[in-house]
Amino acid sequence: MIEVTYTNKYCQFSRAELVARLQANLSSHRFEHCVRVEQTALQLAQNLPNVDLEQVSIAALLHDYAKEVSDDRFLEVIKTNHLDPDLTNWGNFIWHGVVGAEIIADELKITDDGILTAIRQHTVGAPKMSVLAQLVYVADYVEPARNFPDVTYVRTLAQADLGAAVSYETKHTLSYLLTNNKAIHPQAIATYNAWVVGR
Amino acid sequence: MIEVTYTNKYCQFSRAELVARLQANLSSHRFEHCVRVEQTALQLAQNLPNVDLEQVSIAALLHDYAKEVSDDRFLEVIKTNHLDPDLTNWGNFIWHGVVGAEIIADELKITDDGILTAIRQHTVGAPKMSVLAQLVYVADYVEPARNFPDVTYVRTLAQADLGAAVSYETKHTLSYLLTNNKAIHPQAIATYNAWVVGR
Repeated sequence: MIEVTYTNKYCQFSRAELVARLQANLSSHRFEHCVRVEQTALQLAQNLPNVDLEQVSIAALLHDYAKEVSDDRFLEVIKTNHLDPDLTNWGNFIWHGVVGAEIIADELKITDDGILTAIRQHTVGAPKMSVLAQLVYVADYVEPARNFPDVTYVRTLAQADLGAAVSYETKHTLSYLLTNNKAIHPQAIATYNAWVVGR
Repeated sequence: MIEVTYTNKYCQFSRAELVARLQANLSSHRFEHCVRVEQTALQLAQNLPNVDLEQVSIAALLHDYAKEVSDDRFLEVIKTNHLDPDLTNWGNFIWHGVVGAEIIADELKITDDGILTAIRQHTVGAPKMSVLAQLVYVADYVEPARNFPDVTYVRTLAQADLGAAVSYETKHTLSYLLTNNKAIHPQAIATYNAWVVGR
């Protein structure tokens, strides 16, 4: 286990306090997923220059902080915080990232834009993603409990070339949605056009 | 061959004159494709109530009228006609529909919005498509020279349920683009979300 000691640069809570807040808000299976994503993101980050492990730990731990928030509350926050009204046409899968970041900023007093953007982008990515955002996006996809045919390959790919793993994840998630006639958010296509096309 | 006599309601030219204009602007293989799309759209239209065969003939014949226009001219029309500047990020595949409709309106004096919209939408569809637009979109996909594994099935589907053929075409075109790492226009996803998801 990689345990990062927080300096209060990004968050007024210690890691233990943040973990307690997370645990209080999530069912145990999802809480454990968040810790696995944190550990996976930290492992991937160790290979990379200029990454702040404290930022990685916070963003990865909190990426699903709002996953069990009610639809009514998300719709309320969209209205109160004057977010894009088109968001109301989507559901929990989109809201827990973009709207979740607002809730996290509010409840946990996190103001660091790098962390909040990584959380916003963890569901459908973005044409431009920081290394921090890529780490959360990919760690969420390959954490140890994930199980899909090529997962071992993608774990190796993520260690060798994080951007290539972003590309793989983007393409295969879209392919899954398309095969199953599930809604695709326009930003997922913007991510695909930037990270997959011509790569 | 289904030959529609024009009444000048939509176009100042006779069908023969329009065909001559089309032929002058296209290589022979593409001109012949346009005539096949017209015939296919007219055949499909014969099953449907409240469809104006003259409108179908014009829209289907002209759908690729601008397909061999130069990139420079398309870029010029985007600028002159104040079209969405994001169009400049795309290429002939998108331009010959959306920008092509402007060229058709200008050169052939076609002002009927039903016809121009069907031409605009024939490449990536739209969440809401008129029956006319669906006819051009589907006929372009299943005209007799098209050849893909399920083409016979889709031809039968198009006769039985035009909307189901729109759905099939939308999903399978996206699947082809995704498999081949080709750019996907956001409107193709809007079409997918409207015509495929939950259908």
